[in-house]
Amino acid sequence: MELWYTDQHTKDVRFSMKVMRQIASQKSENERIDILDTVEYGRVLVLDGELFLTEKDEFIYHEMLAHVPMAVHPHVRNVLVIGSGDGGTVRELVKYKAVNRIDVVQPDKNLVTLAMAHLTFCSAAFRDKRVHIHVEEGLRFVRGKMNEYDLIIVDSADPYGPAEGLFTREFYGNCWKALKVDGILINQHESPFYSEHSLSVRNAHRHIATVFELSMLYQAHIPSYPSGHWLFGFASKKYHPLKGIRTRAWNSLKIPTRYYNTELHRGAFALPNYVRALLNQQ
Amino acid sequence: MELWYTDQHTKDVRFSMKVMRQIASQKSENERIDILDTVEYGRVLVLDGELFLTEKDEFIYHEMLAHVPMAVHPHVRNVLVIGSGDGGTVRELVKYKAVNRIDVVQPDKNLVTLAMAHLTFCSAAFRDKRVHIHVEEGLRFVRGKMNEYDLIIVDSADPYGPAEGLFTREFYGNCWKALKVDGILINQHESPFYSEHSLSVRNAHRHIATVFELSMLYQAHIPSYPSGHWLFGFASKKYHPLKGIRTRAWNSLKIPTRYYNTELHRGAFALPNYVRALLNQQ
Repeated sequence: MELWYTDQHTKDVRFSMKVMRQIASQKSENERIDILDTVEYGRVLVLDGELFLTEKDEFIYHEMLAHVPMAVHPHVRNVLVIGSGDGGTVRELVKYKAVNRIDVVQPDKNLVTLAMAHLTFCSAAFRDKRVHIHVEEGLRFVRGKMNEYDLIIVDSADPYGPAEGLFTREFYGNCWKALKVDGILINQHESPFYSEHSLSVRNAHRHIATVFELSMLYQAHIPSYPSGHWLFGFASKKYHPLKGIRTRAWNSLKIPTRYYNTELHRGAFALPNYVRALLNQQ
Repeated sequence: MELWYTDQHTKDVRFSMKVMRQIASQKSENERIDILDTVEYGRVLVLDGELFLTEKDEFIYHEMLAHVPMAVHPHVRNVLVIGSGDGGTVRELVKYKAVNRIDVVQPDKNLVTLAMAHLTFCSAAFRDKRVHIHVEEGLRFVRGKMNEYDLIIVDSADPYGPAEGLFTREFYGNCWKALKVDGILINQHESPFYSEHSLSVRNAHRHIATVFELSMLYQAHIPSYPSGHWLFGFASKKYHPLKGIRTRAWNSLKIPTRYYNTELHRGAFALPNYVRALLNQQ
């Protein structure tokens, strides 16, 4: 028997990987969760039928969410991570000794439980004593917070399902309030390539730009995600991601990374002309 | 009826696009050529079953082959393009008034004929008076040349079929001889991500590094190619691709591009750690 899992990149483009076996399949209140073992991509997490992460390339996504702001902000103590049911982003953050507290807000308890059982390459970091998991909607959690975090990372699903609220102006405004005076907001920002997604890239960027003093995008090569060309938002009250990068200080920490380095950090902000045009489109 | 074309990215990963109709299908001496109209990627060229280019993202590949060396070398007059049966690389080169002559070496005459008929978004440039098409093997053509070209661009297929010879040390040595004292060699360099391909990346890079004074790699996001993370080789007798970039001069030419710009040029050379490690692997 041949078993193949297919992720629909657009309605007319499909990405398929050969499956060895299905590890888990659960229907939560909000979403369906599947975990598969694949030949090429190792263990894979699928949410509501859509590929969420793979063991083979999740390091790219998680390193780019965590290390870009950590190389810029000089004293991150308190971090809020919204999403990250798998723990990959947290795994990168606990590499920093100076971080005191990491609040993880994830509405789906089943996802955390399944990740703890089957995605230990990411979720092992949940056992770190500085990590506090809140089973709650990110939108609601952040609403009450004021001047509390140095860094907020929005590690969400696509803006078409339950995560839709994490791409609104209201949410970004609440993140601004929850951040300290020199805080940074990072969010996964979808792909600019397929027109099905590029509108949400433009809209999210505009919403953030009306709220934050500084808003820029950076990119990475994530092979299993639609188009492989993925964007991240860097929104900041004070620090500039290029002028403010602390190259020597970050390298002296000797944080082990497989994708990120401080040269690549600079390069990641150099966007292609068609992406620049998308962002400036009326 | 639903018609889907599938490109096998590895033996366990498939990339499929919905097809509207098959435009042409021919079996040449060396290869099978198919041209398809797809919903998402527009017109698509398939060689021996493998995706070669798509109307939607070929601009990324061709701009990165042509403009990176053109922004570095101060006086490109004579160019040799090996491969480029479609004409996309030539289309980017004819944007430069200072270029006097472009030799295109392509062994498959049918490919050129089909491209002229069906891939005019690329092949229209073949009508430029400076372009001379030689129906010949690239390996053989370059063997007899000495001190003739300012720039050689190897726009080849993958190194597993007929194009294998274009990834050998002998070939790179002959390119070195065919170049003038300050010449540049650019080649498409495959993807570093899947282990099926990464060995050929490492080997090609080593062969080039033994022949040329300077050899570096740069990258681009090409969604339709395996992994979407594509590498290019920049080998040079004299000019450094970063120290030598003529930012102001290139921008003053006002060459229209949709992907390339001089900031991205710098960023493209900042490789991820795992790619650096692959290149340095013993």
